[in-house]
Order: sequence, then C-alpha cells, then structure tokens
Amino acid sequence: MKRVLLTGASGFLGRYALQSLAGRDYEIHAVSRHPLEACGGVYWHVVDLLDEKRVEALISDVRPSHLLHLAWYAEPGKFWDSAENFRWLRATMALFDAFAASGGSRAVGAGSCAEYDWGGGCCREQTTPLLPVTVYGRCKDLARRYLELHSTVDPMTSAWGRIFHLHGPREDGRRLVASVIDALSRGQPAPCSRGDQLRDFLHAADAADALVALLDGVVTGPVNIASGTPTTVAALVLKIGELMEALPLVQLGRLPARSGDPPVLTADVARLREEVRWRPRYDLVGGLRETIAGRTGGGM
Amino acid sequence: MKRVLLTGASGFLGRYALQSLAGRDYEIHAVSRHPLEACGGVYWHVVDLLDEKRVEALISDVRPSHLLHLAWYAEPGKFWDSAENFRWLRATMALFDAFAASGGSRAVGAGSCAEYDWGGGCCREQTTPLLPVTVYGRCKDLARRYLELHSTVDPMTSAWGRIFHLHGPREDGRRLVASVIDALSRGQPAPCSRGDQLRDFLHAADAADALVALLDGVVTGPVNIASGTPTTVAALVLKIGELMEALPLVQLGRLPARSGDPPVLTADVARLREEVRWRPRYDLVGGLRETIAGRTGGGM
Repeated sequence: MKRVLLTGASGFLGRYALQSLAGRDYEIHAVSRHPLEACGGVYWHVVDLLDEKRVEALISDVRPSHLLHLAWYAEPGKFWDSAENFRWLRATMALFDAFAASGGSRAVGAGSCAEYDWGGGCCREQTTPLLPVTVYGRCKDLARRYLELHSTVDPMTSAWGRIFHLHGPREDGRRLVASVIDALSRGQPAPCSRGDQLRDFLHAADAADALVALLDGVVTGPVNIASGTPTTVAALVLKIGELMEALPLVQLGRLPARSGDPPVLTADVARLREEVRWRPRYDLVGGLRETIAGRTGGGM
Repeated sequence: MKRVLLTGASGFLGRYALQSLAGRDYEIHAVSRHPLEACGGVYWHVVDLLDEKRVEALISDVRPSHLLHLAWYAEPGKFWDSAENFRWLRATMALFDAFAASGGSRAVGAGSCAEYDWGGGCCREQTTPLLPVTVYGRCKDLARRYLELHSTVDPMTSAWGRIFHLHGPREDGRRLVASVIDALSRGQPAPCSRGDQLRDFLHAADAADALVALLDGVVTGPVNIASGTPTTVAALVLKIGELMEALPLVQLGRLPARSGDPPVLTADVARLREEVRWRPRYDLVGGLRETIAGRTGGGM
C-alpha cells in the first residue's frame, strides 16, 4: 500500500487533498500544526516543519512512499516579499532531503504561477521563461530546481504543480473572491478595479484533486494547475454579483489597478489534461456557486 | 575597519586569499577545520560549516561586515555528482542567512564554470545560458540564485566569482597539472589525452586575489574568474614538459578523451578586467614555473 505524507493538511488546499487522497489507495499521514477534527482514517502528526530535527524524525518514523508538500508561508499581503520565504525554502529542502534519504519514491510540490515571467501571457511549462520577480516566486522556483535535482540523483520521481488563481469557501477573507462574497453577503458594496486583467480561477477542491492526480501518476517536472478557461476579473466579480443577486453592489473601476499586475496571466493546461489526464469537476459558474454557498452558509 | 569572514581558509584557494586580504584593510577571521600554522594577524575559528548552530553562533560572535565563502566539498573524482553537494548547498544558504541577519554588507561566493552550458564555448556572464549538468554545477547555480535573492531583500550587496581551471603547487595530486608535474618529477611518463580541448588556466594565487578584489569592490552579480588567455590542454602539458626539461615523457593521445568533456570551455573576462579592474600577476608560463617550483621544491 502506498503511504503518503501530506504537509499543510489543514490548510486551504490541504483539507481537499485529504478528501481526494481518501478516494485512492493510500495510508494517509497528515502534517499540520493544528489537526482537523472528524477526519477518519488519517494519521495526524503535529509537527512544525521549520524544525528540521523534528521533520527528520517524522520522516524516519513514517517512511512515506509518497510526499505531497503543500505547506508554505501564505499570509495575504505579506507573503510576496517576506523573508519567511527563505525559511520555508530551507525547510522544504530539508524535507525533500529527508524524504529522499528514507527511500521515498514520488514527491510533488506546490509551485506557483509567480515562477513565470509575468509578461509571458498564457504560461506554458516548457516554453514560458522563468523570471520570478517576487521573493515568493523566486523561492518557489529554487525549491522546484532543488526537487528536480534530487530526483535526478535519487531513485525517486517528482513533479511540481504550478498553481494559478484559486477560490473556495475557506479562502482568506482578504483575498479577491472571498472579500467580494463577504461584502455582498453583508449587503455592502464591493469596490473593485476595472478588472480587465485576464486570469485563470480554479476551485480549491479541483486544484487539490489535480495535485493528488499528479502525485498518483508518473508525469515529471512542472505542470500547470489551472482550469484552462481564462476569465477577466470583471467577468468573475460580475458573475459573483449575479449569483448572489447583488449585481448593483459590484463597483468596477472604483479601485486603482495594482502596480505590476500583468494584463494576462493564464495557463496552458495541455500537460494537465493530456499527460496527467485530469479535468476539473467544476466549471467557473459551478465552482463559484459552491464557494458562495460554502462561504455564506457554512460548510467546508 | 572592515571585518571579513573567510571560509575554506586553509584550502587550495583560501591560503592565498589570506595573503591577498592581508594586503588590504581587513580584520581577518578565518574559518577552517584545520587552522594553518604561522599565519600572523588572523583570527582562526575551528568550525564545521555543516553545523548550522555553530555557524550562527560564529557569525553572531564575529559580526563580519564582509564574507568570502570558498568552502565546499571538493574531493577529486567524487565532487561532480556527490550528494555532499546538497549538504554544502544547504550549509551555504544557512551561512548567507546568518550573515544577512547579523547586518553583513558584502558577500562573495565561489562559483564555477560548471554553471554554464558547456556547449557555450567562450562563456560570458550575461549571455551564456546557465545549463549545469553536474550536481556540483547545479548546486552552485542554486547557491548563486539564493545569494542574489538575499541581496535584493537585505541591505547587502553580493557578487559571485565563477572560477574556471586552476593550478598551483598545492593542487590535489589527482588533478591534471599536478599529476603531470608529479609524474615528470619522478622521471615517469605522463600519459594524457589528445588534449585539443581549449581551456582557461589560472594560478590559484591569482584566482584568490581576483576573488578578494571582487569582495573589496562594488561589482554585483556573476563575474568570471579566469586568465582570459585560452590554451589547449596539449599546449599546457607540453609547456610543463618543456619547463621541466622532460618533454619526451609527455605522452599525448595515450588516454581516451573523457566523455562529455566540451571542446571549448573558456572565459570572457571583460567584467573582471573592466569592472573589477583586476589583472593576473602571472601569465601562463610564469604561473606554471611557480607551480612547478612550489610543487617540486616545497613552498606553499
């Protein structure tokens, strides 16, 4: 039986990854500082991943065959340029080292569209230049290079999911989709920028499921984790307004565009569809419906 | 006064770096597992750089303004693809973190021509693609990226000396120049390959001096550390034979070429000459004379 170690297991993506893993043939070991309640069939390990000695001990206890590494510093507004990224990069490298040393066979890490040149438009894994400008993007890029180097030296394979934009009921309230839903659900206006940026939004449940599919397969190297169906931010927030029957509260053009925000940042998903053979469960409207229902009515 | 921490201080380059630093305005702190004797005016610290806690303590004790990091795993025949490179990469990152955290202002690391695409011919810092194929080259490349990222975030500047081929009296006897000199000095034949590869050889004293000049200046980013005067390996070993009056013992074409050995691996030294404003003290013949004299008659 395959034995997976999942980091960031109680996080935004992690809790969905647990569900996807439960539907496959894995003994699941979840790492988190705060275990989820009511999560049957999962071995929880309360470990601070920044503590290398504890991580080494954990890995040599569990001896996972598979590793899905989602944990990283993700404080909204701060994570782009925080020095915490240095600590998480080093912790990630230590985790990969321990996993390889204990005989692990397959590792998948969570990367980001922030690794790409944001002038690249529709990003393709093998051709879009890597030119991360944020500390976050640069540290993710280094983590990916290190993991790939490991898998050329050690008898393990690896892949790297480059995650684009997400939404989901438990998203941090300071992020775009969540903040619009929260405002509208309180009957308050949701001021937005003009919103002509083209993006790719995917429900977190789908993103986690794609990462699990990647882990459970044999594809190596970077793979975009995205819907493949671009939308403008304006169309996205107008759709939220429509679904919540609060369209007049969506105020496009009330906020300035963020400096450095690229006009087009979307994903080519050919690798995900044709090599990993994965497709999302939700389309944009279906996903937003679920996010709105979960966020305004409770649920996960 | 500037206070420099020099790692690898008793190594092949380190002992020359001590001499170059002594001629400039530095309080010198040397790190090594084995301190050199008879080295006045230098504070020695016997520290294993793979021990992060000891490194942090050392940095917070010394509080260096400058860091010249030469230490790395360098066992001939093994270093190219050893997993030791992973440990040295992580130790190097921890060292840079500690240096930045203690307020260091200028760091220089020792890189390698192995970071370049070896199909690139004459390597130029800003244009030759980075395509390291060895574990050593890939780990050095990651160390450089990490150092550069640090210096964009922290109030410090950094540079990265990409070292090409070296020679010097204390070179390990398994390496090319040393092994030829040793054979000839015993009156034994020195079997070589055909030797039509074009390379750049620099005396270790010059390489160390160039790295110290880089440290003592303001140039940032990668800088090739090389003579800028390419030679074929055949011309090099024939010159050794001639200088040692043992030309008939040099047997070109007796060994097969090493697989993967690029035909041309030389350095553009425009940055080193025009920006760092450094020039070597030895030309090829003068350098070889010194290496032969030092190796066969003692000396450093």
